[in-house]
Amino acid sequence: MVHISPPRIEINCDMGEAFGPYPGGPDEEIMPFIDTANVACGGHSGDPVTMLKTVQLAKKHGVRVGAHPGYPDLLGFGRRSWEMSETELYCMILTQVGALKAVAESEGLSLNHIKPHGRLYTTIASERDLCRPVYKACKTFNVPVYGLPGSFHESVAAELGIDFIPEVYVDANYVSAYTLINKLDKTIPPLQRGDLYTKVKQMRDDDSVIAVSGRTVPMGIKSRPFTICIHSDIPDAIHNVSALQDAVKELNA
Amino acid sequence: MVHISPPRIEINCDMGEAFGPYPGGPDEEIMPFIDTANVACGGHSGDPVTMLKTVQLAKKHGVRVGAHPGYPDLLGFGRRSWEMSETELYCMILTQVGALKAVAESEGLSLNHIKPHGRLYTTIASERDLCRPVYKACKTFNVPVYGLPGSFHESVAAELGIDFIPEVYVDANYVSAYTLINKLDKTIPPLQRGDLYTKVKQMRDDDSVIAVSGRTVPMGIKSRPFTICIHSDIPDAIHNVSALQDAVKELNA
Amino acid sequence: MVHISPPRIEINCDMGEAFGPYPGGPDEEIMPFIDTANVACGGHSGDPVTMLKTVQLAKKHGVRVGAHPGYPDLLGFGRRSWEMSETELYCMILTQVGALKAVAESEGLSLNHIKPHGRLYTTIASERDLCRPVYKACKTFNVPVYGLPGSFHESVAAELGIDFIPEVYVDANYVSAYTLINKLDKTIPPLQRGDLYTKVKQMRDDDSVIAVSGRTVPMGIKSRPFTICIHSDIPDAIHNVSALQDAVKELNA
Amino acid sequence: MVHISPPRIEINCDMGEAFGPYPGGPDEEIMPFIDTANVACGGHSGDPVTMLKTVQLAKKHGVRVGAHPGYPDLLGFGRRSWEMSETELYCMILTQVGALKAVAESEGLSLNHIKPHGRLYTTIASERDLCRPVYKACKTFNVPVYGLPGSFHESVAAELGIDFIPEVYVDANYVSAYTLINKLDKTIPPLQRGDLYTKVKQMRDDDSVIAVSGRTVPMGIKSRPFTICIHSDIPDAIHNVSALQDAVKELNA
Repeated sequence: MVHISPPRIEINCDMGEAFGPYPGGPDEEIMPFIDTANVACGGHSGDPVTMLKTVQLAKKHGVRVGAHPGYPDLLGFGRRSWEMSETELYCMILTQVGALKAVAESEGLSLNHIKPHGRLYTTIASERDLCRPVYKACKTFNVPVYGLPGSFHESVAAELGIDFIPEVYVDANYVSAYTLINKLDKTIPPLQRGDLYTKVKQMRDDDSVIAVSGRTVPMGIKSRPFTICIHSDIPDAIHNVSALQDAVKELNA
Repeated sequence: MVHISPPRIEINCDMGEAFGPYPGGPDEEIMPFIDTANVACGGHSGDPVTMLKTVQLAKKHGVRVGAHPGYPDLLGFGRRSWEMSETELYCMILTQVGALKAVAESEGLSLNHIKPHGRLYTTIASERDLCRPVYKACKTFNVPVYGLPGSFHESVAAELGIDFIPEVYVDANYVSAYTLINKLDKTIPPLQRGDLYTKVKQMRDDDSVIAVSGRTVPMGIKSRPFTICIHSDIPDAIHNVSALQDAVKELNA
Repeated sequence: MVHISPPRIEINCDMGEAFGPYPGGPDEEIMPFIDTANVACGGHSGDPVTMLKTVQLAKKHGVRVGAHPGYPDLLGFGRRSWEMSETELYCMILTQVGALKAVAESEGLSLNHIKPHGRLYTTIASERDLCRPVYKACKTFNVPVYGLPGSFHESVAAELGIDFIPEVYVDANYVSAYTLINKLDKTIPPLQRGDLYTKVKQMRDDDSVIAVSGRTVPMGIKSRPFTICIHSDIPDAIHNVSALQDAVKELNA
Repeated sequence: MVHISPPRIEINCDMGEAFGPYPGGPDEEIMPFIDTANVACGGHSGDPVTMLKTVQLAKKHGVRVGAHPGYPDLLGFGRRSWEMSETELYCMILTQVGALKAVAESEGLSLNHIKPHGRLYTTIASERDLCRPVYKACKTFNVPVYGLPGSFHESVAAELGIDFIPEVYVDANYVSAYTLINKLDKTIPPLQRGDLYTKVKQMRDDDSVIAVSGRTVPMGIKSRPFTICIHSDIPDAIHNVSALQDAVKELNA
């Protein structure tokens, strides 16, 4: 009798989004509950010292570090649409990820993955021609990308021969398959361990999620290992990630 | 009878100092005459696209690429003094050099060396406590640094176990041993091949240079291979580098 | 018998588009030939010292100074589309124009007009909801705006009670009424005085222009004084503006 | 019998030091307790939208607005030393203050005063040659400057014919006459109304303060109206400013 293990689930969170005198999220409190950190690279936020401190914090907690490149728009936190040529996108990724990779390596860590930030992430999910130069740059680092299953994230990664790790959200609402509500709903109530267990189990075992409409929509995980992104910039972030870690531990057991 | 070869001499030049719509120096014209390029890393100048184009241009000419990090002061071109903590300096070097290294590797080139730019270069030549964090960051890249022989560049490199390549200037005036006139004299007449041959030969064979005072002052090259920095931002730059290449070829023959 | 004077024609040019060590256009050569200067305000280009030098140069030549605000995108020279809220646009104009106004007043000049730059100019010509906050900010300065006749520039100015001065182009091609070819054609041949005279006379007297299609299209000047924008970033800029000044002098005589 | 009123005392506070998504201090809570606000101008902090919101908040509370220009060093919050020429300083002040003035005027307020920020403030207190270009720029706005009595702030203001309002501190320690401890001591205990009353009364009536050494040192207020700067970036800021307002009200009664 063959026993097939269910795919492994991990938790990731955006980290290092401070800038100089301005603090970012509660990185120290969240780090104990996550598997991988998406570290801002000085584009939408982050500065060289913040990058190093964040990598050191991740190292202390045994959290693997990935690069979280974004539009170099500190004022808009990388959330505003900005016209960039394919060459500009390609070079922007090379330099931001290269910067973070050097910081990681200075601490003896290797780069674990790449996850574009904010507007860049959502733009390349829906625009193939912009996804290509971004992922072409990612490919030079020879690490997986995190992305929305079923979007151009997945198909362009396949086309370019890049490892793709499906990413799902449990603290944001799905409108339809592969489509999140863009604006984070900060009034979302605290997430409960039990609900999270049920939700993530459904994602893993049925490859589906219940959208805001109430309909069950497919996820596209297809029995692969996947990663859950948890937001750190909502009031109950620490409670949420703690509850999520409990739920995921049980599912991974 | 033992024949000892004289130390090899190379020519380097700062490159890629454009920014977006603003052009930099005559990189295309100068590239054929140099051995290594110090490529701006987005600090004092350079932007991601310029960095890539410069690396591609160097590759086309078989020129090795080094990183040319500087104070992130585009308005002042990295030439203004700016207070930075040791941690800020360390992280600034990691991120700028890391960015350039990634761009080089995307083109199949490896990073050849690191040479700090402008005010950063002169500051760390004379302030040991600021040189240390800069070179500590350089050490993580495991490539040589270019620096002024006899300055803290050399002693800190030795202290940290970093390869040090002595750098000399032929289109700027030495005030005394190891001390250049800071401001580039743009009225300096075109350099002649014969004069350059004599000057560089004296540096190599006598380890000395004639300072502006007329006195002969020691260089500190000590029979090591060394690199000559040629400026690209003076009127006769292309003539100068061409004449210098001729002189150096003969000396290296 | 009533004699009605034809509307007065002026020439304007974008000025002060340097940034720190990076030079802008040939401002000194062009200043003698123009009536008003659109001075960059530190958004798409310009820095505080450049702003002052440009205002001083204009003053020396008796040229009136206007503000030339643009997206704060130095790397893209304000030519890339960028998502901004109405509040962001409103405040961006207030601060950029306020900065330039203070520089002008420090030299005893008053602000003459406002002309948005590049992508901001073309965007608000075609998007009424973005034109309104920009012009609402302009209104607080109580000076005219330069804009494309017939576009939202004109209708929003009317709606908000702002003086509107129609602006026309002679070194760029009209596609249809009120629509220019966005990309400046840098291969355009040098403009000849006679051709310019004919072209501008047709604009003034027939309120029309010959489009690239060969068709005659209406301009919308409607017998008002108008201003001709001449580009300084094309090879024959100085020749062109000199020829244009000759032609305009004769038309204004 | 002649009754001479004691000089009037006011309270000022730095405001509007947010940047885009990054919050600044507790401006809303502090505004009710102060007379004048020093509003960041987009140099060391502040962005166009923050500038407008801060001016609107001040207006709502009847607080007069001044400009708070600083080194354009967001990462260092204007607290790092930076080499600038006299022309650079002059133009920096013109543009930053001009921007804030336009925002104030857009809300129907006039500019009340100018107070340089952070490192710029302390630098020009002790370097006459750098104070001059800063104050020369201030003079074009025809409003008073706030500064340390007895420092170059006062003498350069006198030399240039600028109104000078002596500024004192009650939540930072004086080392000697006119010299504050640069680093704000964030462990300072909450200020008490009675102590504040005594301290400010001594400043006003005896023109002296007790320095950290325990010695009584002169202030240099010389019976003029003066303004007390209160910090908003210490834990007890709101408590402190409330207690200070009570004390000052009684002293002004």
